[in-house]
Amino acid sequence: MVVVMAPEATQTDVDTIVDLVRTAGGEAFVSRGVARTIIGLVGDIEQFGTLNLRSRTGVGDVVRISVPYKLVSRENHPSRSVIKVGGVPIGPGTVTVIAGPCTVETPEQTVAAARMAKAAGASLLRGGAFKPRTSPYAFQGLGEAGLKILAEVRAETGLPVVTEVIDPASVDLVCSYADMLQVGTRSMQNFTLLQAVGSAGKPVLLKRGMNATIEEWLMAAEYIAQRGNLDIVLCERGIRTFETATRNTLDISAVPVAQRLSHLPVIVDPSHSGGRRDLVLPLSRAAIAVGADGIIVDVHPEPAAALCDGDQALVDSDIRELAAVMSTMPQLMGRTLSQAPQPVTVG
Amino acid sequence: MVVVMAPEATQTDVDTIVDLVRTAGGEAFVSRGVARTIIGLVGDIEQFGTLNLRSRTGVGDVVRISVPYKLVSRENHPSRSVIKVGGVPIGPGTVTVIAGPCTVETPEQTVAAARMAKAAGASLLRGGAFKPRTSPYAFQGLGEAGLKILAEVRAETGLPVVTEVIDPASVDLVCSYADMLQVGTRSMQNFTLLQAVGSAGKPVLLKRGMNATIEEWLMAAEYIAQRGNLDIVLCERGIRTFETATRNTLDISAVPVAQRLSHLPVIVDPSHSGGRRDLVLPLSRAAIAVGADGIIVDVHPEPAAALCDGDQALVDSDIRELAAVMSTMPQLMGRTLSQAPQPVTVG
Amino acid sequence: MVVVMAPEATQTDVDTIVDLVRTAGGEAFVSRGVARTIIGLVGDIEQFGTLNLRSRTGVGDVVRISVPYKLVSRENHPSRSVIKVGGVPIGPGTVTVIAGPCTVETPEQTVAAARMAKAAGASLLRGGAFKPRTSPYAFQGLGEAGLKILAEVRAETGLPVVTEVIDPASVDLVCSYADMLQVGTRSMQNFTLLQAVGSAGKPVLLKRGMNATIEEWLMAAEYIAQRGNLDIVLCERGIRTFETATRNTLDISAVPVAQRLSHLPVIVDPSHSGGRRDLVLPLSRAAIAVGADGIIVDVHPEPAAALCDGDQALVDSDIRELAAVMSTMPQLMGRTLSQAPQPVTVG
Amino acid sequence: MVVVMAPEATQTDVDTIVDLVRTAGGEAFVSRGVARTIIGLVGDIEQFGTLNLRSRTGVGDVVRISVPYKLVSRENHPSRSVIKVGGVPIGPGTVTVIAGPCTVETPEQTVAAARMAKAAGASLLRGGAFKPRTSPYAFQGLGEAGLKILAEVRAETGLPVVTEVIDPASVDLVCSYADMLQVGTRSMQNFTLLQAVGSAGKPVLLKRGMNATIEEWLMAAEYIAQRGNLDIVLCERGIRTFETATRNTLDISAVPVAQRLSHLPVIVDPSHSGGRRDLVLPLSRAAIAVGADGIIVDVHPEPAAALCDGDQALVDSDIRELAAVMSTMPQLMGRTLSQAPQPVTVG
Repeated sequence: MVVVMAPEATQTDVDTIVDLVRTAGGEAFVSRGVARTIIGLVGDIEQFGTLNLRSRTGVGDVVRISVPYKLVSRENHPSRSVIKVGGVPIGPGTVTVIAGPCTVETPEQTVAAARMAKAAGASLLRGGAFKPRTSPYAFQGLGEAGLKILAEVRAETGLPVVTEVIDPASVDLVCSYADMLQVGTRSMQNFTLLQAVGSAGKPVLLKRGMNATIEEWLMAAEYIAQRGNLDIVLCERGIRTFETATRNTLDISAVPVAQRLSHLPVIVDPSHSGGRRDLVLPLSRAAIAVGADGIIVDVHPEPAAALCDGDQALVDSDIRELAAVMSTMPQLMGRTLSQAPQPVTVG
Repeated sequence: MVVVMAPEATQTDVDTIVDLVRTAGGEAFVSRGVARTIIGLVGDIEQFGTLNLRSRTGVGDVVRISVPYKLVSRENHPSRSVIKVGGVPIGPGTVTVIAGPCTVETPEQTVAAARMAKAAGASLLRGGAFKPRTSPYAFQGLGEAGLKILAEVRAETGLPVVTEVIDPASVDLVCSYADMLQVGTRSMQNFTLLQAVGSAGKPVLLKRGMNATIEEWLMAAEYIAQRGNLDIVLCERGIRTFETATRNTLDISAVPVAQRLSHLPVIVDPSHSGGRRDLVLPLSRAAIAVGADGIIVDVHPEPAAALCDGDQALVDSDIRELAAVMSTMPQLMGRTLSQAPQPVTVG
Repeated sequence: MVVVMAPEATQTDVDTIVDLVRTAGGEAFVSRGVARTIIGLVGDIEQFGTLNLRSRTGVGDVVRISVPYKLVSRENHPSRSVIKVGGVPIGPGTVTVIAGPCTVETPEQTVAAARMAKAAGASLLRGGAFKPRTSPYAFQGLGEAGLKILAEVRAETGLPVVTEVIDPASVDLVCSYADMLQVGTRSMQNFTLLQAVGSAGKPVLLKRGMNATIEEWLMAAEYIAQRGNLDIVLCERGIRTFETATRNTLDISAVPVAQRLSHLPVIVDPSHSGGRRDLVLPLSRAAIAVGADGIIVDVHPEPAAALCDGDQALVDSDIRELAAVMSTMPQLMGRTLSQAPQPVTVG
Repeated sequence: MVVVMAPEATQTDVDTIVDLVRTAGGEAFVSRGVARTIIGLVGDIEQFGTLNLRSRTGVGDVVRISVPYKLVSRENHPSRSVIKVGGVPIGPGTVTVIAGPCTVETPEQTVAAARMAKAAGASLLRGGAFKPRTSPYAFQGLGEAGLKILAEVRAETGLPVVTEVIDPASVDLVCSYADMLQVGTRSMQNFTLLQAVGSAGKPVLLKRGMNATIEEWLMAAEYIAQRGNLDIVLCERGIRTFETATRNTLDISAVPVAQRLSHLPVIVDPSHSGGRRDLVLPLSRAAIAVGADGIIVDVHPEPAAALCDGDQALVDSDIRELAAVMSTMPQLMGRTLSQAPQPVTVG
């Protein structure tokens, strides 16, 4: 942390800062320039936070130097992590495809979508039972009935289930059906929810808030990690910018940047970032080429009848193309495609 | 709603759309141009939403024309609403000042801040007991102990209490102490929370999400209204932009825009938008001059010791200036300053 | 300037930086922390720029501390400047209104608009003869014929003329008619143009780029100042954000922030920021209340027939309201309304 | 174009709009809904622009439906264009690499960088002689001396030259040395410059403005095309967002979106968007995978000594990696790598 004194700061002002820092158990190094003086602080940054240094007389600015997250930082954990979801790995050696319908509507639609997912190379099934919707008048999901459908389709196809949780009160319920809990973009700073999923003992897929900096995203992961759960996969899904040609702007650079700052795997959602079916394949290729550890895509057997986001769901012809991409690009990146577990056969 | 056909659309494509709309109970008017054909849809827009028109063959674009909110819209409720909080009005005839500490720390600090608030012209006391913090390592608020302090200070000063609720599970608890529930910027699209406060029967202060469009903000208000609660006050608190000189960019235009679209009162938070004490007074004046129905500001008896956001809290000299502004500007706008209720004297 | 070493930096890496800085004539102070080492640099920052410190082994980050502008900075020129345009002051003691048509179309339209401007309290006439238009098919202005009309209207009304220059090659031409040169938002980083107006010896109205930070805006002013011209007025006109309800987002906080960083006057354009007539008056009031040194507004005798931006031009009823604002609000801010010079009477 | 009437609009208001449109030679189709009436306009949209429909009584909103550009639109020119620069193709069948130093400093540095460029797979040489710099105190380029160096290096290496022009007055000079004129991000809406390069008869590399929508970018191309020059290559180079971890946010989706809207080739600048050397390779791979027609990258023999943007220039080890990417990825995309012409041997 660096304290930049204002041009008019006095020696007493400088001494006050140094004293405050030392009293708080830190060390302060003064660099006196012609135009202004700066003070480098060394020690426990949390401690310095309560000193309100910016409010002190003669202080021009306070610049944080070190990162505010610890458990998810790569500084203390240099090798990149592999997270397992129902036995399927997500991490540096593989490309993992998560696919399925945006919303679970019926058993038939879900199983059909799961088969499309598998055909596209997916090893994990996504599907929403609890949906955060901008309008109170829009379909809000089937709730527990949707979770049951997902569990049945898992039994039939072998695909472990990734599904969203939107409320701390329903974390236990969702956990009893899901293999991985998804925290959506609008919930990324729902800190109560982050703490609840952090305590739940299931892998978490943490989408980046559409307005969140990469640092804030990692801080949200830190909330989960602080409760003892480091099985976190980060998902870049587009940020909000001035451009209106796409629903959001996929921040493709965020993948290598986040991988450099954190040991957690990073995947990309090319469906929600573009919001348009014709962008899903190009953005999927770009995601793998940039080094993402996987992708999560919407598929639907009949997009025109979808209850949610039908505009961006892949259809059959796209599935074949995506499968072709998955048969060549992971290898080019020195990775293998994660494989789906076999369905459990009873008998 | 207008469907814009792609240049290559056929007559059959156009007919399909018209048929879909009519089957859904709507009416479709076709305008055939040289370059392209557009179809104007008339009827129940919610119904059209499930038609996935954008996925249909030959469709280039779908443009929504009408607003998606109803209960909070000014179209059906032309006169602007007045909301009462513990008897204090917020609305078109008045300027209401809400002030207090960002975080409740101690009874002494809170009562001192409340006195500063009153001196500045405030008629409502703000103070946080549950704090959403970006870092899991930061102070998260006193919880119920903080609510008790607020209730005591209300008894002593007469100021009704506005405090934040961050979790559906604690709405009942907060309601038992507060006069108005605040939904913070990070919770604006926490739909479970919106529904919970909508059912709670207390006035709600709904902060705009820092990444939310005005339309999304009004949709969040619609979530609350849909549960039967129209006692909602909107609060503009700055949006996230590329500018880093201020914490957020106060969208001052949002005040008249939202007032024109909705009948709900709109106030401004000049403390959190700027994030700097020296901006609070200029932005407070601007807020009243633009036509806001009030402001909400941070005050703290000793900002340098504040546990949260001390950098932006007003101090004594600012209080006198703010009081001076409040004694002249409301009148210039044809309004009066809302007055604090008298403390209840027992005996 | 502060160099933040990476966690893996060696002692040799640190020594290399210190040596480089000293060789460049600066001084380097090392603060060794538990997690990382920072080096505070003191000396000539321009010199350090060519050292490419960020590319050196072991360097994690380089943080600039001091501001990169000098001539326009308030650090070296604490009292705020007053700029005179044809005798009309713009600066701390006054509120100056600049008004006129967005585009000069005919002598009749221009003189009518000038009369409206005067009635609204304006002391300077704006009007565009060279128009930067997004579409090559849109009306590009009357060119020199427009400048002649402006000069005639100045003779008739006494109002000094503010008009835009878009090309270094026409600076001399525009100077021969105008009292103040306007550099538009799209030209804010047209450095050749900035240098040309810097050498022209006329006051300059420098609009903020719609994507420019306040620092970049001041650097653009520095380009003008560096050519010997400090008669610069800054104009905030809205920045580009995700919000689409308004054409741009007026960054009202930029006024006090820029006034604190620079000694130059700062005015506001409420017409182009909102892009809607109904926002001009509320935003004008907000501008004056926040402490702006003036405003620049579009007026047109017949907006429905305007060749450019008719949607935002004020009409007669607005003029009366604006005049009322100008008769009360400057005084409230401890300022006076700048007065128009008398027309020169010949004979 | 669709006119949306306000809820309170009368029949007379509707009739007025219909009459205006018909008088202007267009046709108007009225769709009367329960809540509001919309009017679809058919005809010459430029003509409608001057009707100022938004200012008319009873009009709520005016929504443009068709795109405002013509010559660069893919609607009238469905097959994607190939542009040749000194014989090197840029377009759908190839991947073209443009590389070189950000700034031309010396003949030695430039020829060394050109050799690195070739080794990396480049067939065109970039290098700046006129530099638009944010600070007036920064190095502004060698000017004509730099152009001469570029021409010498072209003679030696055979690589055609791409260089920036920042001022209409120097277009002729730059044309006498360059094979392709670059219009930089800060000049994208310098309309005088666009017109000058449009008349110059050389291919143009048009960078996207860092704050420009894709539509505005295509309108800038239309300015050039309107002067008779359709040899335009679009270059996505990152847009400005709230994220500060990267210099700009590469809008990777803009590549397929622009390619769908326009027949012009689209390339990507991974150096300036990220502003960090470690991002150049991942973003280059992503660019090719998303379907870009090429990339433009900074290389420098000794980045630590570069006069401009040394932080992002590739060094030797990166060159080998980039060459490896270029030997595999174009083929995966069904393209070939564009080859450099042979140097002209004099004899």
